[in-house]
Amino acid sequence: MPISETWLLPDGVADVLPEQAQVIEQLRRKALDFLASRGYQLVYTPFIEYIESLSSLSESNQDLDLATFKVIDQLSGRLLGVRADMTPQVARIDAHVHQVQGVARYCYAGTVLHTKPQGFNTTRAPLQLGAELFGSDSIDADVELIDVMLNLIKTAGLEDGIHLDLGHVGLFRSLVKHAGLNKSTERQLSDLYQRKALPELAEFTQDLKFGADFYALGRYASDFEALQANLSTEILADVAFKQAVDALRTTQTEIQARWPNLKIGIDVVELRSYHYHTGLMYAVYAPNRAEPLAKGGRYDGIGEHFGRARPATGFSCDLYTLSAGQHQKIEKVVAPKGTEPALLDAIATARTQGLSVIQLLGNDDLNSVPYATHKMVNVAGEWKIETI
Amino acid sequence: MPISETWLLPDGVADVLPEQAQVIEQLRRKALDFLASRGYQLVYTPFIEYIESLSSLSESNQDLDLATFKVIDQLSGRLLGVRADMTPQVARIDAHVHQVQGVARYCYAGTVLHTKPQGFNTTRAPLQLGAELFGSDSIDADVELIDVMLNLIKTAGLEDGIHLDLGHVGLFRSLVKHAGLNKSTERQLSDLYQRKALPELAEFTQDLKFGADFYALGRYASDFEALQANLSTEILADVAFKQAVDALRTTQTEIQARWPNLKIGIDVVELRSYHYHTGLMYAVYAPNRAEPLAKGGRYDGIGEHFGRARPATGFSCDLYTLSAGQHQKIEKVVAPKGTEPALLDAIATARTQGLSVIQLLGNDDLNSVPYATHKMVNVAGEWKIETI
Repeated sequence: MPISETWLLPDGVADVLPEQAQVIEQLRRKALDFLASRGYQLVYTPFIEYIESLSSLSESNQDLDLATFKVIDQLSGRLLGVRADMTPQVARIDAHVHQVQGVARYCYAGTVLHTKPQGFNTTRAPLQLGAELFGSDSIDADVELIDVMLNLIKTAGLEDGIHLDLGHVGLFRSLVKHAGLNKSTERQLSDLYQRKALPELAEFTQDLKFGADFYALGRYASDFEALQANLSTEILADVAFKQAVDALRTTQTEIQARWPNLKIGIDVVELRSYHYHTGLMYAVYAPNRAEPLAKGGRYDGIGEHFGRARPATGFSCDLYTLSAGQHQKIEKVVAPKGTEPALLDAIATARTQGLSVIQLLGNDDLNSVPYATHKMVNVAGEWKIETI
Repeated sequence: MPISETWLLPDGVADVLPEQAQVIEQLRRKALDFLASRGYQLVYTPFIEYIESLSSLSESNQDLDLATFKVIDQLSGRLLGVRADMTPQVARIDAHVHQVQGVARYCYAGTVLHTKPQGFNTTRAPLQLGAELFGSDSIDADVELIDVMLNLIKTAGLEDGIHLDLGHVGLFRSLVKHAGLNKSTERQLSDLYQRKALPELAEFTQDLKFGADFYALGRYASDFEALQANLSTEILADVAFKQAVDALRTTQTEIQARWPNLKIGIDVVELRSYHYHTGLMYAVYAPNRAEPLAKGGRYDGIGEHFGRARPATGFSCDLYTLSAGQHQKIEKVVAPKGTEPALLDAIATARTQGLSVIQLLGNDDLNSVPYATHKMVNVAGEWKIETI
């Protein structure tokens, strides 16, 4: 490999230079401090684990498995995975390592790696930050998480024009169960909903049992009134279906009461990570961005893989997405060489005040620090800081 | 794999639970803030890179190559390495991405992964934090880095009884050159020095050219006066040898002037990472710990691999080592359910004051939060916080 190429980076991977790194660092701190104030306790999860532990979510979600880099452990000869999502790790901690009876709240922040970018123009190494709540199946828990998610976006200064999307896998799932569909038909339907392919959906549901209901679910996915007007009475009376509808409506009402000006959209066939989620799903979008700023949902039973099934709900976001395009000019004060006590005092004081102060080395002069913005100069026996 | 084992972690890898995570998080912030105050700019380096970029230090240092996990890039088909050390990455950034003319200072903090533990009882996933200075070959730069390293240890509250070790690869290297030794003999000698095997060294150097000098170097490695009394005048007159001795003595004097009570030890044949370093080497030790708290040294020319050779000096440490055994009890306030404005105000105020406040969910009572330390109670119409 020629020298000229040794500094190229793989696709979807990037250096973060000081002007951007300090923005992300501040955002990371603000976000974790905010989550701590809401009772979410910080955990650090391992970067590598046995693949079986990481795949608790991927049994039914092949995407995560495909996104996971695998290496052989030289100590055990077993297969390790590099974390591609921290949620299963936090679920493992809740299930086994930090066994809290009752409700447990955790937050985390760290790099995850994906074998391929998970979306258009996205990184392979997101800086994932998230919050999870275990041990409560109350709708209050989902409402809390959505409220926390929205406040986190506000903390990041991105609340202008945001839009909350609510979904619930229970409507489709209970309909599938009621109609007794096989896996293949379920998958085909789920795909048609995802693609918003209404003409195809109309054709596909024509001869299907409860076909008119499946069509209505897609056709009126965002309009509760119209949806209820077009569903059969048998489906509307289904207990699981009714519960899902109620959960969705309660959440919408509760969140709107807390965030009166927020635009809230409903999409009852928004089924991304459908296999993974078990109830309410939520995502927050910014204007003119295709990828959500943050997303999450309920995933009860995840701990079962580790021998302790617990209700769970949570969300995550990528700090790179939240800080996209933000830079901050870095101020640097340059002080002359010397060990004169008054100079050293002035330097120490400036540093205590939060300034970044460099003292010249060897025979260097100001030209050796071309990125300096200020200099320390002696004016009538006193050390002062001046703009360069 | 039975369920009971899916939550086991590989050797040398661990979860960090809230009581410890918040200690590390605070230390990370204090350390990065301190480094910023000294003019070191934060960079985030990628977790994966093409193996050729990561191996800039490992051409002559096979250890780093062996410590690096390798995976195939599904996008390019090329070999990627998971970072095992962030120093070569920062050197790549200095050489190509952030081309500052003059002196550049960087700091970084992040997890690195090792295929095997690098020491007795050490982790395979250290949380590496470090500082690097590029573009100055002055001894002032090394003195600055040692001073910064010592202040960082002080920031971590670990300055009691610490001990600074200074070495310089230039003494041994210039002696080897002067004597014209071949690579194999050089390696054998370096190994004998590392093992402090004096009887073997005496035998090995008996018939060697300049053997008495090589023996004296090992025998009087920590005592300048005795060393100079026992070296041949020819070696003492060697320019490179003299420069190395002067650099070591100047550094010792300068650091002792800044840190009058610090114990400073010299070891002129301390040759760990000998192939990697090119000048002064420094490490700080705590009483009763075998592994250094932080270590570093000069490694001029590292950027050559990327087409821009620059003088460089820097150090790194592991935040897990620095925070070892420290835990901090977490305080949690539990507030009752409700949307009464006075209650919501009291909760918001407590959170603004830095308290961690949880509001009960669904039908939960205080028992659902067994780790709570305080509760919010209404006393004569006013919300107060009481210890549980």
